[in-house]
Amino acid sequence: MSDTPRDPLVVFTPSGKRGRFPVGTPILTAARQLGVDLDSVCGGRGICSKCQITPMYGDFPKHGVASAPDALSPWNAVEERYKSKRGLIEGRRLGCQATVQGDVVIDVPPESQVHKQVVRKRVEAREIVMDPATRLHYVEVTEPDMHNPRGDLERLLDALRDQWGLEGLVCDLRTLQGLQPVLRQGNWRVTVAVHQGRRRSNGRIIQAWPGYFEGSIYGIAVDVGSTTIACHLCDLQSGEVLASAGLMNPQIRFGEDLMSRVSYSMMNPGGHTEMTAAVREALNTLIGQVADEAGVGRSQIVEGVLVGNPVMHHLLLGIDPVELGGAPFALATSDAMTLWASELGLSMHPSGRLYILPCIAGHVGADAAAVALSESPHAQDELMLVVDVGTNAEILLGNREKVLACSSPTGPAFEGAQISSGQRAAPGAIERVRIDPETCEPRFRVIGCELWSDDLGFVEAAGPTGVTGICGSGIIEVIAEMRIAGIIDEDGAIGSAEAVGTPRLVQEGRTWSYVLWDGRAAGGPLITVTQGDVRAIQLAKAALYAGARLLMDQMGVDAVDRVVLAGAFGAHISPLHAMVLGMIPDCPLEKVSSAGNAAGTGARIALLNAGARREIEAVVRRIEKVETAVEPRFQEHFVSAMALPHKTAPFPHLGTLVSLPAVRFEQGGEDGGRRRRRAR
Amino acid sequence: MSDTPRDPLVVFTPSGKRGRFPVGTPILTAARQLGVDLDSVCGGRGICSKCQITPMYGDFPKHGVASAPDALSPWNAVEERYKSKRGLIEGRRLGCQATVQGDVVIDVPPESQVHKQVVRKRVEAREIVMDPATRLHYVEVTEPDMHNPRGDLERLLDALRDQWGLEGLVCDLRTLQGLQPVLRQGNWRVTVAVHQGRRRSNGRIIQAWPGYFEGSIYGIAVDVGSTTIACHLCDLQSGEVLASAGLMNPQIRFGEDLMSRVSYSMMNPGGHTEMTAAVREALNTLIGQVADEAGVGRSQIVEGVLVGNPVMHHLLLGIDPVELGGAPFALATSDAMTLWASELGLSMHPSGRLYILPCIAGHVGADAAAVALSESPHAQDELMLVVDVGTNAEILLGNREKVLACSSPTGPAFEGAQISSGQRAAPGAIERVRIDPETCEPRFRVIGCELWSDDLGFVEAAGPTGVTGICGSGIIEVIAEMRIAGIIDEDGAIGSAEAVGTPRLVQEGRTWSYVLWDGRAAGGPLITVTQGDVRAIQLAKAALYAGARLLMDQMGVDAVDRVVLAGAFGAHISPLHAMVLGMIPDCPLEKVSSAGNAAGTGARIALLNAGARREIEAVVRRIEKVETAVEPRFQEHFVSAMALPHKTAPFPHLGTLVSLPAVRFEQGGEDGGRRRRRAR
Repeated sequence: MSDTPRDPLVVFTPSGKRGRFPVGTPILTAARQLGVDLDSVCGGRGICSKCQITPMYGDFPKHGVASAPDALSPWNAVEERYKSKRGLIEGRRLGCQATVQGDVVIDVPPESQVHKQVVRKRVEAREIVMDPATRLHYVEVTEPDMHNPRGDLERLLDALRDQWGLEGLVCDLRTLQGLQPVLRQGNWRVTVAVHQGRRRSNGRIIQAWPGYFEGSIYGIAVDVGSTTIACHLCDLQSGEVLASAGLMNPQIRFGEDLMSRVSYSMMNPGGHTEMTAAVREALNTLIGQVADEAGVGRSQIVEGVLVGNPVMHHLLLGIDPVELGGAPFALATSDAMTLWASELGLSMHPSGRLYILPCIAGHVGADAAAVALSESPHAQDELMLVVDVGTNAEILLGNREKVLACSSPTGPAFEGAQISSGQRAAPGAIERVRIDPETCEPRFRVIGCELWSDDLGFVEAAGPTGVTGICGSGIIEVIAEMRIAGIIDEDGAIGSAEAVGTPRLVQEGRTWSYVLWDGRAAGGPLITVTQGDVRAIQLAKAALYAGARLLMDQMGVDAVDRVVLAGAFGAHISPLHAMVLGMIPDCPLEKVSSAGNAAGTGARIALLNAGARREIEAVVRRIEKVETAVEPRFQEHFVSAMALPHKTAPFPHLGTLVSLPAVRFEQGGEDGGRRRRRAR
Repeated sequence: MSDTPRDPLVVFTPSGKRGRFPVGTPILTAARQLGVDLDSVCGGRGICSKCQITPMYGDFPKHGVASAPDALSPWNAVEERYKSKRGLIEGRRLGCQATVQGDVVIDVPPESQVHKQVVRKRVEAREIVMDPATRLHYVEVTEPDMHNPRGDLERLLDALRDQWGLEGLVCDLRTLQGLQPVLRQGNWRVTVAVHQGRRRSNGRIIQAWPGYFEGSIYGIAVDVGSTTIACHLCDLQSGEVLASAGLMNPQIRFGEDLMSRVSYSMMNPGGHTEMTAAVREALNTLIGQVADEAGVGRSQIVEGVLVGNPVMHHLLLGIDPVELGGAPFALATSDAMTLWASELGLSMHPSGRLYILPCIAGHVGADAAAVALSESPHAQDELMLVVDVGTNAEILLGNREKVLACSSPTGPAFEGAQISSGQRAAPGAIERVRIDPETCEPRFRVIGCELWSDDLGFVEAAGPTGVTGICGSGIIEVIAEMRIAGIIDEDGAIGSAEAVGTPRLVQEGRTWSYVLWDGRAAGGPLITVTQGDVRAIQLAKAALYAGARLLMDQMGVDAVDRVVLAGAFGAHISPLHAMVLGMIPDCPLEKVSSAGNAAGTGARIALLNAGARREIEAVVRRIEKVETAVEPRFQEHFVSAMALPHKTAPFPHLGTLVSLPAVRFEQGGEDGGRRRRRAR
C-alpha cells in the first residue's frame, strides 16, 4: 500500500475496503495488504484459481472512482492457459495475475472468499461462515543440499512459515513417513493439509500431496444419538454438504434407552467396550456410505466433529458411562477434546483430527452444546427457549445476558414408545390428526400418503395395511384434539361413550379408549388411544414443561419470546397442539420454530468454522446448569403440569382460535363408567 | 518469608540460601519460598517422605546462626507413623512436618533434592542433574457435585493447577478412559504422572494411580546401533540405572552395514517396513529383558529416549532410508521428535512419551548428537576432538566457540570385519598385543583370560581353542606394534622373513604375513596378520584421520587439546597404539580418554534431564557440518594419511617413549622378496 496520491486507487466490493497501490501491484497482493478476504491455495502462482475477481469498469460515484477498461494489466498467458484448461467465467480475472494500472473497482465473488457464507435453509438461523480448522496450502520447498543438512520436513516447515506465515507446525509421523517421495514426485512443490490447532503455534501437517493438489479435503459432522446416528460429509473448502446418511444406533441391542445401556455396563463387566465397538463400527459404516455416495476417498476425510449426549459421548470415547447412571452424574470429562481419528479407530484419514464438543453437565451433553451453537440463545436479544426432545429433553433458556440449561426425563413416549399403538416415524404411521369437536369423528394423515383419511381414494392410496400405528407427532395431535373436542377432561381422563356421546369410545376394562382407525376388516390393525396412552403423554409433557418452567423460574420470567423445537421430533410436531397439551410455555405461534436436527447442524458449524469451537467452549463454560433431579420445585411443577386445564382464552398467540372445554370426567366407580360434567 | 528481624532465621545447606520465617512455618514451605531444591510428591501431606531434611544443631559462625535443639517443632505423630512404617534415617525429619521455632540450619541431603546429581564413573564427564520430563504428583481432587457439573478430569486439572502450579495440561484418552475408577478407588486422592511438554503449557497426564503411589516410574535410554542395540532402564526419580541389556540388531540379516540395508530397501519394495518391524521387535525384546531384570512392570516405563545413526533413526520411525543412500543424503527430518510409545508400537506404557534426539546431518545422526550431549565439546574451553568409531566414524571437533561435525567412511575393519583372522569382541579374541622390537616375538591377551600368552599356564587358562581370532582393538595394537618393531615399513608393507630377520614372517603368494599364534597343533587356528589386513587398517585409519584433519583445517588449527574415543571400540582401544598408527591426531596421552558408549550415555542424560533436550537441540542447530564426500581436501588428507611415516621424536606426549623406525621394504619383484633398507 502506498501513501502517494498519484498511485492508483483500488476499491474492493462488497467489503468497500480501499487503498492506493503502485502500478504493477497484483490484485491479490493489494487484497492481502488491505485485509480483503480473497482466497488462494497456491499463494499467487496462477495455479489454484481460488483468487478469481471481477473487475468492474465504469463510473462509480459512490466509491469516487472511475474505473477504465485499462485499469488492470492485460489478460495474460497464465490466465489464458487456466481458462482453456479449466474454464473461467466471462469477465473474471485471476487476482494474482491482474496487476493495478489505474483506479479500479474489484468485486470479490462469494466463491473467492475464504470466509464465505454457507447457505442455510432457515432464514432465522445463524450464519455459517467458512473458517475451517484444516486448510490446504501449496508451497515450493528448497531442495536439499549437502551444505545444508536440514531435513526435508524442516525445509517444508520453513517454506510454510515463509510463504504462509505458519509458525511452529509439527508433522504427524504417518505423514512424515511418506513425505520424501511426495516432495520428489512433486519436484519440490507440494500441497499440504494443515490442521490449525487451538493455539496458533500448534498446527499439524496431516497430509501432503505432490504438486498442486486438484482435489479437495472433506470433513464429517456426526450426531451420535441414542436411537439414530446421523453423519454429514462436507467439503472443507466450499462448505457444501455432499452426502448425508443415518443409521440406527446398534447399541440398541444393549438397551433401548440410555439408562438401560448404563445398566448393561454395570451388570456386564467390560460391557461398555462392546457398546464402544458397536458405535464405532456404525460410524465407520456411515463414513463409508457418505464417502461412497460423494465419490470421496476415505483418506481425504481429514476432520470430524462429533456430538452426542453424555452417555453416547463416553461410550464413543471408550469410557465406562457407569458414573452417569446415578447422582452426582459425574462426567469423566466435560471439556472439548481434539483427538486423532486413529484414536477412535475411525476409518478416515488416520491423522484426521476429531473435535468433540464440550458437555454441559452429566445429563446435558455435547449434543446440547451443539444445539446451543446452532440456535445460539447466547446471541439473542430475545429470550429463547430451545427444547430438544428425545428420551431425555435437553432444554436451554437464555439470551445475551445469560443462558440456563437442564435436562428433563421425558421418557420415550414422544418417540411413540410406551404408546399402545405407537410406532417410530415411518410410512403408515399416523402423523396428523383432526377431530371434529361436534361429532368427535377423526380425520388423519399417514406418513407416505398425501391424502387425509376422509379424502376420496385414501384407502387405495394408503393401501389395505397402509395405516400401521401412531408416531410421536401423531400422538401429540390426537391427544390435543381429543382435549379440544372434550373427549379428554382437564385431568386427562377419557370420558365414556355415553358421557361424550360418541360410539368412537369403547370400554377396555375400567377405562375407555378412543378408536382412531379400525382396519381389521381389511386385515389391518385397530388403532386406539387408550387411557394409558394419555397418561404416558401427560407424564412426558409434564416433565418437559416442568423443566422449561424451572429454567424460567431461575431466570425470573413468566414468559419466553421464542421457542425452538429441535430434534427429529421437534421438526414434525405441530406447535399449536404442543401448546394445547401444555408441552411448552405459551408463546406467539409465529415465534415457535422447528430447528430440525440442530445438534447435527451445530456439529456442522463446528466442522466448518474453527472459531465456532472456541465460541461454544466459552458459552458452555458460562451456561448455568440447573439439576432437575435435586430441585424440589421441579417436582412441584411436574405435578401441576400433569393437568390439561380448562382455558377460556387460553392461546392468545395462536393463529387458530382454540379454547379448551372445562370438562371433568369422574374417575370410575364400580361400574367403570364416568359422568360428564360440563362446567360453565 | 518475612522481613521481621524477630522472626527466626532459616539457613539451608548446601545451597546457603537463607531467610526469616514466622514461627510455625513448615520447613518445606520455607524451602519453596527460598527456591531451595527440596523434593515433594505429596505436596506436603506427610505421605511421600521425599522432603526429608537433617536439622543441624549447634553454633554455625559461618552462617551467623546458633541452632538450638528446640529450633524445630517436636517430632510429631505423622513422622512417627512414617518412621515405624517405612523407616527414617536417624536425625532426619520430614520437611513438611517440622516447623520453624527458632534460628536453624537445615541440611538438604542429596536424595531429597529434585535436581540431584547422578554419579558417573568418569570424573572428567559432565554432571547429570535430575530434571526428568515426567514426574509424579500427588493431588487431592474436589468431589463431584450436582451443582458443579465439571467433569472429573477438569477437577483433577484444577487440583494440579492449584496444588502444583501446572497449567494447561491435557490428558491422554487412554488415561481418561480409566480415570473415574482410579479417582474413586483413591477416595479423590490420586498420584499422576505428568509429562511436561516442550512448552510449559503442553504437558500431558499419562497415568493416574489411586491414592499415593508407592512405586516409581521408569524410562529407557536406547542406542540403536547398526550392529547392536543397547537399552538402559532408569528410575526417573533417583536417576539410577536399574538394568541394561544389549542385543544384536536383527536388521543384520538384511545387510551387515548401513549401505547394504539401504540397498535392501531400494531393491525390495516395502523392504524398509520389514527392517522397521525387525528393529521394533528387538526393542520390545530388550524392554522385556530390562523390565524383568529390574522387576518393573512395562506399563511403569513411561518415557524413552532413542538415538541412532540416520539410517537406524529412519528405519525405527518407519521412514524409507533410501534418500540416505546417495547425495545429497537428505534426511526426512533432522529435528528432535516427541511421539507416543504406541506410535512406534513399543511395549511400554502406550501413552509413554518417546523423545528422539535430532540428527546433525545425513551421515551424522542422533547418535552423534547424543555423543555431543554426553561429551559436550560445546561446553569446553579446550579444543576437544570426539571420535565415535563404527562402520562410519562420527567426528566432532569444538569448544565453546564453535563445534564442527563430519562423518567418515572407515568401513568395518576396526570392528574386525574384512580382517583375515578378525572377529567381534568376544571371549577368545586377541585384544592386547606387544611385540618385542628385538626378537619380533609377540605376547598377547585374549578376552576372558587375565594372563598374557607368555605367562605360565596361559594355554591352560585360555584352553586349547581359547584363542579364536583378533578383535578390533587387537588388530590396532598388533599392527602398531609391528610398525614399532620395524616389521611394517612406512608405506605399510610387511617385510620378508629375511629382511626383518624373524621366522614369524611367512610368505603367502607375493606378500608376507606375521604369525601371531599357531594353535593348529592343538586343533586351534593359525592367526596371522596379512598384508591385506594391514591395507584394510590403513584405509580405515586414513579415513578417520582425514575426517579429523578436515575439521581441524576448517577450524584453522594444527592440534587439538583433548581426544575422546567414544563407542564400544573406543572403550577398548589403546590410545598410544591409535596414535602410533596415526588414527587420531597427536595429543598428550593423558588428554586422551575413552567415553565408552557415549551415545547411550547421551540418551540417558536426555532421559533424566529435560533441559538437556533443549540444550542439544540448540547445539545441533549451531554445529557446522562438513561433508567429507564433497570436500576435495578430504581426498588429499586421506591419501597422505595412508602412510605410517618414520618419526624420530614422534610422540612427545606419549607416556612411553616410542619412535617409529625409518624403514621401507621394496614392493615385491618376481620372487616376491623384499629388501630391508634401514635409513639413518
